[in-house]
Amino acid sequence: MVIVGGGFGGLQAALGLKRAPVDVTVLDRYNHHLFQPLLYQVATAVLSPGDISAPIRQVLRGRNTTVLLAEARAVDLGRKVVVCDGGDISYDSLVLATGATHSYFGHPEWARFAPGLKTIDDAREIRERVLLAFEAAEREPDPERQREWLTLVIIGAGPTGVELAGALAYMTRHSLPRDFRRVDTSQARVLLLEGLPRVLNTYPEKLSEKARGDLERLGVEVRTGAMVTGVDDEGVTVGDTRIRARTVLWGAGVAASPLARTLGVPLDKAGRVKVETTLAIPGHENAFVIGDLASLVQDGKPVPGIAPAAMQMGRHVAKNIRHQLAGRPLESFRYHDKGSFAVIGCGSAIGVLFDKVRLSGRPAWLMWLGIHITFLIGFRNKVAVMLEWAYTFLTQRRDVRLITGLHANRLPPIRSASLPGGSEARPEEARMALEHGSEPVHVH
Amino acid sequence: MVIVGGGFGGLQAALGLKRAPVDVTVLDRYNHHLFQPLLYQVATAVLSPGDISAPIRQVLRGRNTTVLLAEARAVDLGRKVVVCDGGDISYDSLVLATGATHSYFGHPEWARFAPGLKTIDDAREIRERVLLAFEAAEREPDPERQREWLTLVIIGAGPTGVELAGALAYMTRHSLPRDFRRVDTSQARVLLLEGLPRVLNTYPEKLSEKARGDLERLGVEVRTGAMVTGVDDEGVTVGDTRIRARTVLWGAGVAASPLARTLGVPLDKAGRVKVETTLAIPGHENAFVIGDLASLVQDGKPVPGIAPAAMQMGRHVAKNIRHQLAGRPLESFRYHDKGSFAVIGCGSAIGVLFDKVRLSGRPAWLMWLGIHITFLIGFRNKVAVMLEWAYTFLTQRRDVRLITGLHANRLPPIRSASLPGGSEARPEEARMALEHGSEPVHVH
Repeated sequence: MVIVGGGFGGLQAALGLKRAPVDVTVLDRYNHHLFQPLLYQVATAVLSPGDISAPIRQVLRGRNTTVLLAEARAVDLGRKVVVCDGGDISYDSLVLATGATHSYFGHPEWARFAPGLKTIDDAREIRERVLLAFEAAEREPDPERQREWLTLVIIGAGPTGVELAGALAYMTRHSLPRDFRRVDTSQARVLLLEGLPRVLNTYPEKLSEKARGDLERLGVEVRTGAMVTGVDDEGVTVGDTRIRARTVLWGAGVAASPLARTLGVPLDKAGRVKVETTLAIPGHENAFVIGDLASLVQDGKPVPGIAPAAMQMGRHVAKNIRHQLAGRPLESFRYHDKGSFAVIGCGSAIGVLFDKVRLSGRPAWLMWLGIHITFLIGFRNKVAVMLEWAYTFLTQRRDVRLITGLHANRLPPIRSASLPGGSEARPEEARMALEHGSEPVHVH
Repeated sequence: MVIVGGGFGGLQAALGLKRAPVDVTVLDRYNHHLFQPLLYQVATAVLSPGDISAPIRQVLRGRNTTVLLAEARAVDLGRKVVVCDGGDISYDSLVLATGATHSYFGHPEWARFAPGLKTIDDAREIRERVLLAFEAAEREPDPERQREWLTLVIIGAGPTGVELAGALAYMTRHSLPRDFRRVDTSQARVLLLEGLPRVLNTYPEKLSEKARGDLERLGVEVRTGAMVTGVDDEGVTVGDTRIRARTVLWGAGVAASPLARTLGVPLDKAGRVKVETTLAIPGHENAFVIGDLASLVQDGKPVPGIAPAAMQMGRHVAKNIRHQLAGRPLESFRYHDKGSFAVIGCGSAIGVLFDKVRLSGRPAWLMWLGIHITFLIGFRNKVAVMLEWAYTFLTQRRDVRLITGLHANRLPPIRSASLPGGSEARPEEARMALEHGSEPVHVH
């Protein structure tokens, strides 16, 4: 019995089989389970990676489970083997839970300029880019270029894009200003671009409007109906308008993990596997697909690609495998929509409970806090995150501001404007510096 | 007025000038101050990098200080300029506090195989290598190779080497065993190699012996008088004995930062600048050197390259610069040895107070805890570290176990031995697997 993927779905499937009379092997290319809903807070210097991740081995400690650090490259449903780096693993029954990855709408070349947010390294990369932009702005004497460093563009106004935009706006307005001498970070522009007519379009229209209002109050420039046609290292092109920005982040498309394409079974247009109501792959009763990798329509609506759905699927698949072991028939999966929330910023969120109750503002935010603490894995992480939040809420500070790579050489030249007293301009000196920039600039 | 380096010395110098009538520019190639004494706990999965670092800008918030992310490449004492990537910065007075780096005793090629511990990236690299070794061991069916993965060698029994060895021994004995199914991590060998006759040789002989005893009780194999003559990706050579190990860590030599060599002034053999008693560079009353970069002999003994000395030097240099501004003569620096501690493991440390009182075992360990919490910068970090320690002490767990890179392809082939039930050997299947490893191996 093999489970590929240690995310929300895979973990629940493994936990649901803990007492089953079967040997379970869990494969993941990383050694840790990641609580992705809070990843944007790592990217925005609130939390540390360790606060939202847990070693899969530790979570799945138990007799019948073996955890292997391995990357599944393909699945051969005929031979019943998972092809991994380092060897094949054959299975009696299989659960695929490898989730989703970024999609750049057929523009893979954009990835370099606009990182997305799926892994801890993604979050570190985004954190470093954002922090470096302000360091660069502090060094940059040319006002035009400085503006480019102080312009942050987020593409895609789904949950991730909205979270990033809200958090970055808050950071630039409340956390950073007092730390910089030359630049006023509260003047930084945070643009959120969305191709569709509204933000968070999976939510009711009224809530989208509320979300947009809250974003704008936070200082985010929201542009809906804005189709991005180009991304490079100097900015973004939307139709015939050009936005010059040195920091561009990607919160737009998701596509199913490429493993799906190796199955040779029907996929939907997002590349997800069209599964039976039992979550089995059509014609393969012993191979199940769950979470973001599964495409399932229920009551005419697709089951959403969110953590609660993945966890429900994981538990259901565990139950179905226990049925198989006991020679009982498989049951159909039903997604119970307990609700979903999207956070916009400190004190602001939107959400829907049981497909009925609509919440926004502080009540929604408090619900969001509670839900995320509850589902965060591990006592240590719960306590750590609660304290970090309390600290951040009380001090407005963002302390996990790490630039660990050596990037100073990528920053603008050092000129008088970036030196002490530069803010109280010293005309003759500034001119001297701009005329022959290589000249040493005097510091008093 | 320019300060190069935001470590213990540079930060104290800047803080000491906060109210002085002078513009201060602090340059650092990283944006954060790092509390290096606890870096080994990041490398051993106890703490997160954010817990032991603070943004320099935030620490030095204040009117007369400008912080720049910049790497100083050279100093021209004649022209009074610091040559940085991106431009020169001239100064009236200068404080050099760029500290020390690793030294591989003329074998730079060893660095690839035996990373040292100076930066957050170093700590992450060591953490990842150690964790990967156990993942590899879990996958490795060949007992011989498995032993190599389960052998950790630390070169150099100074404070860093001892801290790493003690922490790794504890981790393998108490934190990891229950998480692995095939390998018994408590059988892992942790070797500490030291060329000198004793460990922690800067401490009194009696304390060295105690430390060695404590290390051995923790499960560390201590080999003193062991001169390393070779390091490669498969192990370490000591004279004519060969130690096969896949994980080798460097805690041996330190050398002054290369910036010293650009000054064109007399250096000691560790490459440190021989300074006047005022901490000024001989013949350059306006240029000071402090911390690990400074070489100063007091009462026939060199001032040690430790944080307290660097902080005292920083405060003294600030005072001397205030004197210069007021036209008063410079004062000589005197290092007050309040004591120093080296931690071996949970409940065990050694230390000397005021050059008299000698402590070891639990009392020394408690002192060590108190001192490190006290000097850790920032309320948030103090609380975070105290809680992480309490948690680690109570649960014996190491939770910050992150492998964020994709390394599965570097691990041993997957064979039956690494699959469920592999521990309860299945002879025929194991043979089959070993005969034609590429054959899929059956999982029940």
